[in-house]
Amino acid sequence: MSAAAPPYLLGELARRFGCTLAGPAQLSIEGVGALHPGQPGTIAFLANGRYRRHLHSSRAAAVVLRPEDAAECRLPALIHDNPYLIYAHIATLFAPPAPRPEPGRHATASVARDAWVAPSVSIAAHVTIGSEVVLAEGVLVGPGCVVERGACLGEGTVLVGMCHVGAGVTMGKRCHVHPGAVIGADGFGFARGPQGWLKIPQLGSVVLGDEVEVGANTTIDRGAIDNTELADGVKLDNQVQIGHNVRIGKDTVIAGCTGVAGSTIIGARCLIGGAVAIGGHLEIADDVTITGMSMVTHSLRHPGTYSSGIAAAPNQVWRRNAAAFAHLDELRREVRRMRRGRLHEQG
Amino acid sequence: MSAAAPPYLLGELARRFGCTLAGPAQLSIEGVGALHPGQPGTIAFLANGRYRRHLHSSRAAAVVLRPEDAAECRLPALIHDNPYLIYAHIATLFAPPAPRPEPGRHATASVARDAWVAPSVSIAAHVTIGSEVVLAEGVLVGPGCVVERGACLGEGTVLVGMCHVGAGVTMGKRCHVHPGAVIGADGFGFARGPQGWLKIPQLGSVVLGDEVEVGANTTIDRGAIDNTELADGVKLDNQVQIGHNVRIGKDTVIAGCTGVAGSTIIGARCLIGGAVAIGGHLEIADDVTITGMSMVTHSLRHPGTYSSGIAAAPNQVWRRNAAAFAHLDELRREVRRMRRGRLHEQG
Amino acid sequence: MSAAAPPYLLGELARRFGCTLAGPAQLSIEGVGALHPGQPGTIAFLANGRYRRHLHSSRAAAVVLRPEDAAECRLPALIHDNPYLIYAHIATLFAPPAPRPEPGRHATASVARDAWVAPSVSIAAHVTIGSEVVLAEGVLVGPGCVVERGACLGEGTVLVGMCHVGAGVTMGKRCHVHPGAVIGADGFGFARGPQGWLKIPQLGSVVLGDEVEVGANTTIDRGAIDNTELADGVKLDNQVQIGHNVRIGKDTVIAGCTGVAGSTIIGARCLIGGAVAIGGHLEIADDVTITGMSMVTHSLRHPGTYSSGIAAAPNQVWRRNAAAFAHLDELRREVRRMRRGRLHEQG
Repeated sequence: MSAAAPPYLLGELARRFGCTLAGPAQLSIEGVGALHPGQPGTIAFLANGRYRRHLHSSRAAAVVLRPEDAAECRLPALIHDNPYLIYAHIATLFAPPAPRPEPGRHATASVARDAWVAPSVSIAAHVTIGSEVVLAEGVLVGPGCVVERGACLGEGTVLVGMCHVGAGVTMGKRCHVHPGAVIGADGFGFARGPQGWLKIPQLGSVVLGDEVEVGANTTIDRGAIDNTELADGVKLDNQVQIGHNVRIGKDTVIAGCTGVAGSTIIGARCLIGGAVAIGGHLEIADDVTITGMSMVTHSLRHPGTYSSGIAAAPNQVWRRNAAAFAHLDELRREVRRMRRGRLHEQG
Repeated sequence: MSAAAPPYLLGELARRFGCTLAGPAQLSIEGVGALHPGQPGTIAFLANGRYRRHLHSSRAAAVVLRPEDAAECRLPALIHDNPYLIYAHIATLFAPPAPRPEPGRHATASVARDAWVAPSVSIAAHVTIGSEVVLAEGVLVGPGCVVERGACLGEGTVLVGMCHVGAGVTMGKRCHVHPGAVIGADGFGFARGPQGWLKIPQLGSVVLGDEVEVGANTTIDRGAIDNTELADGVKLDNQVQIGHNVRIGKDTVIAGCTGVAGSTIIGARCLIGGAVAIGGHLEIADDVTITGMSMVTHSLRHPGTYSSGIAAAPNQVWRRNAAAFAHLDELRREVRRMRRGRLHEQG
Repeated sequence: MSAAAPPYLLGELARRFGCTLAGPAQLSIEGVGALHPGQPGTIAFLANGRYRRHLHSSRAAAVVLRPEDAAECRLPALIHDNPYLIYAHIATLFAPPAPRPEPGRHATASVARDAWVAPSVSIAAHVTIGSEVVLAEGVLVGPGCVVERGACLGEGTVLVGMCHVGAGVTMGKRCHVHPGAVIGADGFGFARGPQGWLKIPQLGSVVLGDEVEVGANTTIDRGAIDNTELADGVKLDNQVQIGHNVRIGKDTVIAGCTGVAGSTIIGARCLIGGAVAIGGHLEIADDVTITGMSMVTHSLRHPGTYSSGIAAAPNQVWRRNAAAFAHLDELRREVRRMRRGRLHEQG
């Protein structure tokens, strides 16, 4: 059996990914699996401390974990500071290669005559490709996608299916766009005039770097004047909304249901939680972490972790505290008055 | 006229659905309608106390209501503890049967040769059905849907249109999936490596029980290792996001715009309001109610109602209270100091 | 060169749009552009004070701004109280006319025989048009749209692509619907019965007035009994959710990710920020402004600006304040007790 195909020996996985081996090098690993309850023959991982208790009961054959968790572990283990990364490598090794559709275009696809389609591109059923679109080598366009005129998809980029790519949108290499994503719809701009709202033409486009991931039903609007830009390695989860003119730096990650209003600039390597709302015209520095459901109304100019929001409590407790909040400023003034009164008495 | 077709007599509706009749049994009811302003000939319902005032002005022929509201009611009535349920039954009785498309597949549909399609299945225009898909008796696949390879839809399940069902997703019987829903997109998992983010293969799938409702533009991600699972009778409203590995118990209902982060386990019969954000890796017990816009960052291990969030106030009031919140911990310390000072003085 | 085609002279733009000219009337303007860094030959605008500093460095040929900003401006300028509106007019003047598809239907479109399609209508690839649909003059139906039976689109209405319009939905003239929008899915209504949830038939429809904008992946549910109604000039951004039976008044604007629960009535000319959650069965008066991420749980019966939410702070500050919030009612009681104690001592 060649080392290049599963199963793999535990010792070989240790060597390949630079882990410390704690257990029999000859142990055969047939796949990856969950820690709990654990499937015999598979390797699991422990990255989140709250699952540590499962180490004792897991039926997995081996586990990837941190040095500090190794002492507790009775299972054969691969020890590494970043077990999630090692798991990612091992899972990729074992993952069945996705059945890649044949190059060519489905009989039902509608492709403009003047679109430029590389030979290795695969275009699925019911796809619409507009005029002057460019699809580079290895591009996959899944069923039901629409790619409007002049859009340009870099090598190896995948539209999974039912994605809508607006006119002139540019994507780099190996981007991955999930179903229902809409990239390049008009930004939301209206000026109030005497006869009601006047629509502002949205003249910019959207430019995605390489290896950008766009989640299901996520929307990225085209710029009003300049482009909306996402740098290389940006990862957006599902149902994220990116307003017009937003710029997002390299390797920033945004979790589901988060919205970024127009013209905000977000730095590189930020970690933005789910259901966060970020106002418009703000600047978020590099290396900022924003925890889930935060409300960001001011620029965050320094790296660090920022938060807001109050966690759910039993309804009656919440009612009382929320009622008190409605008088919080009064309370503060009252305390100030009392303190001044005391100081006066004492003085 | 047979009792099986409209109009129905009020007395018959009372008998059929176990209500107390307050009014003429021979009153003919031609349909359902709203309480306000009320349409002659129709039966309305009153379930929400804030509409009680409309009882006096309604032009409806009759109304379904609770015993405690009957005294106030001058209209003929059906009295029951759960008027909304009775209304649901009556409305269903009167609802025009949805025009059911003929069995068969539209000429434009693209169906893989090795898909298994029951004879009574109806497949609409511009549908894509992948390899090894199974569509059981009575399945309806509306226009523009994509069902990827190996997915399996149980008897009577309906995809209304433009739904995306990923590879290997399994749905039970009589599920109802609204347009734009994306079931089985990749979960959001990336490990940070020295060269940027490494995508974690999402090896699990999505399994829906029977009679699951999935709202428009709702997304349910496939599991990372194990499956994402929704039990029988789960109802999701529009624009709900369900992360990978989430499990949701029987008959739990989730209102619109709510997000559930990965690996969270939600019990049975929960009622989760709209715009709620539920963090990852949590456990929510059976019979938990969470009110709208709550932020859930800890497990809720006991049945009951949980809430967070502060209601909107006039902007100036809010500004002052929010400013005070930014110093809330100081305020608390100040009060403690003052109390200790007082105790000291008194002691 | 005719005055009807670009470039335009600055003096002519001033005349045409009623601005005060500050600079050479003969200056040739070739297009619109951003203020920063500014592109030679273009006209920019300054409406948001936070960009005022760019006036000094901009390379734009001219700028539209308010009287109070004119003193600081060394560039040729058009002065007006509403520079954003003037910019909208000028940008529209310069915007390349969108390439309008030819009237007719694409070979792949599926159009019911008894649909009524005006001669100037354009129907793109992979569109499905149901029975008895009415498409008035000038309607554009972009690629992949589904328009279900009996829906009616007024003159000049545009479905950009991949929009889903449910049965019987009515739209006025010149509506603009972006990709992924779902108009007329079932409202979310279930009654709890002894055997689980019973679906309430959603018998109403959706009625949109003229010039309604519906953003990408926005959802508008059909009414349960009566219709869901959006008046003329309503503008919805992306990923907005409108529940069943909601009514929204003329020219109200709702920013992205906002949800409105069922049966709520919103007045005219409201400005509703992004990520706002508005509960069900409420009334919002005309001319109400709600700032982003507010939670609205009570009716807002008077014009004015309403807000809630706490802005993100450094994580440690937030932790302390959020912990204090959990005891806010106790704190308030403590302060009351102390005050009473003091009054007692003093009394």
